[in-house]
Amino acid sequence: MLYDTLAEELYTEICHIPLIDPHSHINPRKAASTSLDDILGYHYYTELAHSVGMDQEPLAPAAEPRERVRAILCHMAQFDNTVQYQWFIEICRAFLDFQGHRITMADCAWLYDSAEKLMRGPDWEDRVLRQSNLEKIFLTNDFDDPLTGFDTDRYVPCLRTDDLVFHLANAEVRGRLAKATKIEVGDLPSLRQAIGSLFEHFTKHGAKACAISLPPDFAPYPISEHELRSALTALSPDNVAARSLCSVGVFWMLAELCRDLSLPFDLMIGVNRRVYENGVYQGQDLFDQRTSLLQYRKLFNAFPSVPFCISVLSSGQNQELVSHAWIFPNVITSGHWWYSNVPPYIEQDLRGRLHAVPKAKQIGYYSDMYKLEFGLPKFNMYRRILAQVLADDFVRPRLYTDAQAIELARLLLRDNVKRIFNV
Amino acid sequence: MLYDTLAEELYTEICHIPLIDPHSHINPRKAASTSLDDILGYHYYTELAHSVGMDQEPLAPAAEPRERVRAILCHMAQFDNTVQYQWFIEICRAFLDFQGHRITMADCAWLYDSAEKLMRGPDWEDRVLRQSNLEKIFLTNDFDDPLTGFDTDRYVPCLRTDDLVFHLANAEVRGRLAKATKIEVGDLPSLRQAIGSLFEHFTKHGAKACAISLPPDFAPYPISEHELRSALTALSPDNVAARSLCSVGVFWMLAELCRDLSLPFDLMIGVNRRVYENGVYQGQDLFDQRTSLLQYRKLFNAFPSVPFCISVLSSGQNQELVSHAWIFPNVITSGHWWYSNVPPYIEQDLRGRLHAVPKAKQIGYYSDMYKLEFGLPKFNMYRRILAQVLADDFVRPRLYTDAQAIELARLLLRDNVKRIFNV
Amino acid sequence: MLYDTLAEELYTEICHIPLIDPHSHINPRKAASTSLDDILGYHYYTELAHSVGMDQEPLAPAAEPRERVRAILCHMAQFDNTVQYQWFIEICRAFLDFQGHRITMADCAWLYDSAEKLMRGPDWEDRVLRQSNLEKIFLTNDFDDPLTGFDTDRYVPCLRTDDLVFHLANAEVRGRLAKATKIEVGDLPSLRQAIGSLFEHFTKHGAKACAISLPPDFAPYPISEHELRSALTALSPDNVAARSLCSVGVFWMLAELCRDLSLPFDLMIGVNRRVYENGVYQGQDLFDQRTSLLQYRKLFNAFPSVPFCISVLSSGQNQELVSHAWIFPNVITSGHWWYSNVPPYIEQDLRGRLHAVPKAKQIGYYSDMYKLEFGLPKFNMYRRILAQVLADDFVRPRLYTDAQAIELARLLLRDNVKRIFNV
Repeated sequence: MLYDTLAEELYTEICHIPLIDPHSHINPRKAASTSLDDILGYHYYTELAHSVGMDQEPLAPAAEPRERVRAILCHMAQFDNTVQYQWFIEICRAFLDFQGHRITMADCAWLYDSAEKLMRGPDWEDRVLRQSNLEKIFLTNDFDDPLTGFDTDRYVPCLRTDDLVFHLANAEVRGRLAKATKIEVGDLPSLRQAIGSLFEHFTKHGAKACAISLPPDFAPYPISEHELRSALTALSPDNVAARSLCSVGVFWMLAELCRDLSLPFDLMIGVNRRVYENGVYQGQDLFDQRTSLLQYRKLFNAFPSVPFCISVLSSGQNQELVSHAWIFPNVITSGHWWYSNVPPYIEQDLRGRLHAVPKAKQIGYYSDMYKLEFGLPKFNMYRRILAQVLADDFVRPRLYTDAQAIELARLLLRDNVKRIFNV
Repeated sequence: MLYDTLAEELYTEICHIPLIDPHSHINPRKAASTSLDDILGYHYYTELAHSVGMDQEPLAPAAEPRERVRAILCHMAQFDNTVQYQWFIEICRAFLDFQGHRITMADCAWLYDSAEKLMRGPDWEDRVLRQSNLEKIFLTNDFDDPLTGFDTDRYVPCLRTDDLVFHLANAEVRGRLAKATKIEVGDLPSLRQAIGSLFEHFTKHGAKACAISLPPDFAPYPISEHELRSALTALSPDNVAARSLCSVGVFWMLAELCRDLSLPFDLMIGVNRRVYENGVYQGQDLFDQRTSLLQYRKLFNAFPSVPFCISVLSSGQNQELVSHAWIFPNVITSGHWWYSNVPPYIEQDLRGRLHAVPKAKQIGYYSDMYKLEFGLPKFNMYRRILAQVLADDFVRPRLYTDAQAIELARLLLRDNVKRIFNV
Repeated sequence: MLYDTLAEELYTEICHIPLIDPHSHINPRKAASTSLDDILGYHYYTELAHSVGMDQEPLAPAAEPRERVRAILCHMAQFDNTVQYQWFIEICRAFLDFQGHRITMADCAWLYDSAEKLMRGPDWEDRVLRQSNLEKIFLTNDFDDPLTGFDTDRYVPCLRTDDLVFHLANAEVRGRLAKATKIEVGDLPSLRQAIGSLFEHFTKHGAKACAISLPPDFAPYPISEHELRSALTALSPDNVAARSLCSVGVFWMLAELCRDLSLPFDLMIGVNRRVYENGVYQGQDLFDQRTSLLQYRKLFNAFPSVPFCISVLSSGQNQELVSHAWIFPNVITSGHWWYSNVPPYIEQDLRGRLHAVPKAKQIGYYSDMYKLEFGLPKFNMYRRILAQVLADDFVRPRLYTDAQAIELARLLLRDNVKRIFNV
C-alpha cells in the first residue's frame, strides 16, 4: 500500500528483519486464533462496532460465535475507513486465502468456515509466526502465572504489576498473592518478601521485564517506611488515601527490585480505566492529555541503572518523551500505544524520535496483540510508515544511505530490544 | 490551488456534493452581505488588522463604512500570508468580478462600488447560495428568537444556550427569558418550566440542535436538586459559587431536554472569553490548552441517547476527541473550529479522524460564518484539504477507490449531518 | 539536502538574505571556537553522549580536551540519526575542510589538528561570520556585564534577567547587583533604582532587548507595593513564598522598564531547571507540557506598547502562541527553541504560524548558539524547512510567487528583527 518506489524498496528490506515483539498480551498456551471469532473478538472491533450502534447482546459469552462475527461484520461497513479495518483485511488476505480488498456480509459464512478449517491445521501457530517473521514475543503475565507449559524462549515472560500496585486492597488480589508466594501479606516486611519472591519466580523462568500501565495523574516518589507501614495497616478498598499511598509505595518497591535484578521496567503511561462505564470489555478506557513525564522525575533520578521503557498514550506527550529520552540515560522510547497506534500519530511521533533521540535508545514497535495473527498487519503498518519516513527524511536528503536506513530499522525492530532486555 | 492531479480530480467531484452547513451565525433575515463592509467586518479581518497595528477608531459604529474598509485593506498587506486573506481573495474572485490574485489599496474604491452594486441585486442571496452549493444552513439562535420571518427549511434553527448556562444571574437575561416564555423564573420548577418551553418553541419551529460554547475548565456533573435550589436562591452576578453551580445545573437540564426531545447537543469546548480585554468586538477570546474531554465523562455516560457533536478549540485536544468518538457511541466529531480552522491544523486533525473514528460519526465541516459569502471559501479550503488527504492516505495506497473516497466525502459533508440532525 | 527543485531554488535565494540573529549565547570577546573541543563542548553533544552511556569523567575541567573530543566522537555513532549530528557534519564540511558525510574515530586526530590550525587563523571569526552571512548577533548578557571590549554594533547587547527575577534571594546575586550599580538593595525603592540603573547602563550601550527564561508554572500579575515590600523584607533562600512573590514583583518591574525604555521583552517560556539532577552541565533541564499562555494574560493586557517576543519550549504550546500572536498586537512569535528546535517540530510549528499569524509579527529563527560556528548549520536547517514549506504551501498552490515567498523569508529572517528590535 506504499506507492513511493524508494519507500517500497526499503519496506521490502525491512520486512526481512526477524522481529522480537517486546510487548503483547498473547496467551502462550493458546497463542493463535482458532476461529474468526477470536480475530473479531479483539476489543478494537467490538468497541468500534458498538460505537456505531451495535448492542452488546452478541458479545455475551453465551452468544453464538458465528452470530457474533456476523453482527460485527455487519457494522464494519461503517468503520471501513479505520486502520483496524485494514488490519482485518490484511489478516484475511495473508492468512485466510481471501483475495478481495473489502469484506461484505456475503463473505461472512465462507470466511468463517475457511478460518475454522485453516486454524485447525496442526502447524497454524508456527505458520503464522513464520509468515510474520516473528522470532520472539514478550508476554504480559499475571503475577501469579506459574510460567510453565510453554516455550519461554519463544514467548518471553514479563511480570505485569498493575494488580499489585493498584489493587492490593482487594481481598482477591491478596489471596492470589498469598497463594502464589505462600506468604500472607500483613505488614511491610511480608509484602516486600512476597513481591521479592515474585521477582525471583519470574526471573528464574526467563522473565525479561517488569511492566505496568499507569493513570495520567500518577506521580511516584519515595515514601517513608513509616508512611507505607501506616498505609498498609489502613489499607482497604474504601480508604482512598491509604490505597494511594500503597500504590506509590509498592511501585517504588518494584523499581528497587528491577534495579536489584537488572530488569527493565516498562511504563505505559496515561490510561484512565472505566471512563465509558457501559463500554464493551476492554473498550472503556481513555486518557487525559493533561499529564506530564515531569511526574516521573524522582523515579528517573533515583534509579539510574534501570532502563525505563516508556510508552505514552497521547501523541501530545510524545515530545516530552523525546526530550526525556534525549536527556535521561535511563529513559527509552517504546512503541506506539493504543490510541496513538494510528498512522498519522505514529508518523508524527516517529519523526520526532528519529530526529532527536539517540537511535540506540528507541524501541520501535510492539504489537500489544492478544492473538498472533495481529502481529503481521500491525508490524506491517509500522514498517510502512517507518520506510516512508526513512525515505523522506533520511535517504532522499542524503543523510543516510539505503543500507544505513535499514540498519536503523534493524535497531528499532530487533537489536535494541535484544540489548535492552538482554534476550 | 491544488497542484496534485488526483487531489484536484477528487476536489472537483467533492464540490458537486450539495452542502448542509451544520453551524453558522447567519442572520436569516439578512443572510447575505450588502457591502464590502459586511465582508471585512468579519472579526477575523478586524482582529488581524488590529493585531498589526490598526487602532479601533474606524471600527466605531459611527465611522464611515467606506473608511473602515480602507483602513482594513490598508493593513491587509501585513497579513496576506494568512488563510483569512485567501478567503477574502476567493470571495472577491467568485462573487465580485475581481480578476487578480492580490488586493491593493488601488482596488479599494472599485471593489467597494462593485460589491455594493452586485449585492443590491434582488437575487444576490440565492446566487450566493447556488454558487456555493449550499442547500441548508444551521443557525445559532438566541433563546428568545421568535423564529419567524424566514424559511426554516433553508435556515435551520438551533437553540444557542450560552446565556442560559452562564449568564442567568444577569437581570437582563432573566428579563428576556420571562418575556420569551411568559414565565417569571424564581425557583427550580419555574426555571425548568421556562427552559422546557423554550425547547418546545424551538422544536415546533424546526430546530434541529441545541448548542453551547464552553470554557476550558467546565466540568459538568449531576448536581442534586437541593444544591441547585439553594444556588438559584443565592444567584447573583457577584456570587461566583452560586453562578458556577447554576451553570452546571442548567447545563445538565439542557442535556435532559435534548434527551427528551431527541435533539443533538453541539458542544464547542474550550473558549475563554475576554482574554484580550481591549480586543476588537469578537476578537478577545482565546483558549487554554490545559483542558480534557475527561471533564465530560459523567455527561457522556449519563446521556447515551443524546448525540454530542463535539468541537474542540485546540488541535492538541483533537486526539482526545478522536479517541472519545471511537469509544463512546454518542460522541461525534464536529468540524474544525476557529483557532483550529487553519489548514495545517485541519489537515492534521482530519487525518487523525479519518484513520480512527468510524466514518458514520464524523461531521466534516461547518462554516461558522456570519455572512453567506464566506461559505464558499471556507468549505473550499476544507474540501481541498480533504481531497488531498483522501488522495494521499486512501486512494494512492489503494485502500479506497476514487468512488469510495467521494462517498466518504459525501458522508462528511452531507449524509452524516442529515442522519444525525434528522434533517 | 533538499531534493525538491523548487524548494532548493528558494533555499538558494533565501541564503542570500543577510541574517540578524536575535538570540544567542555568544561571548563577544571570544565568539568563535578555538578548537574542536569548543564545538563538541556544546551541551547538545555532551548530553547526547551522556544519554547513550558516556560517563562524565571526560567532561571534568581538568580533563584533556583531545580526550574529551575522542570520548564524545566515540559515542556519536549511537546518535548519528539526530539533527545535532547533522549540525556537526555541516560544520566540519563548511569550516574544517572535511569532505565526508560521516565522522568516525579514524577522523578524530586529523580533525582535531585541522580545526586547531584553522581556528588559529587571524580572520577566523570574520570568515565564519562572512561565510554564514551573519550581519549582527544578539547576545545574552548578565546584568552585571560591563558591555565593553566588543563591537556592540555587530554583537548587540541584551539584558538577561533570570538572576534578578529568580535568584535575588542569593547573597551572591545581590552582591553582583550592588557592585554593578553601586546601590545596596535593601528595600523596594533601592531595588527599583538598582534595576532602573541596569536598564540605563544597557540601553546606553546599545542593548536592544530584555530577555528571560521562565518555568512552565510562572504566572505574572501586578502585586501590590505593600506585598512586594513585605516579600522583599522576608526574602531569603529558604522562604519559598517570599521568593515567589519577589519573582513576580521584579518581573513586573522589568516589564514596566521595558515599557518606559521602549525595549522588547523576550520571554522564553517553559523550562524547568535541574530536572535530571546528575545531568551534564546545561543538560539537566526539561519541560512540562501542562502550561498555558493564558498565564500571561494580565501581562499582555497591562503592557500594550511592549513587544513580547515569545518562545515556547513545547511544540504542543505552539498553537496557543499562534492564536495569541493573531489576537494580541503586542505578542510576537519568536524562533524555535531548544526541544522544539528539531526539524519535525519546526516544520509543524512554522506551518501553523505561516498560515495564521500576520507575517509582520513573526521572528523566524535565532541560533541560541554559544559559538559562532553553529550559526551556519542551525540557520541552514531552518532555511531548508522554510524553503520547503514556502514551496509546498505558498508557491505551488499559487498563493505567492517565488519573489513574494522570498520577501516573506526576508521578513522572517531580517526585516522583522530590524523593525521590532529597532536595529
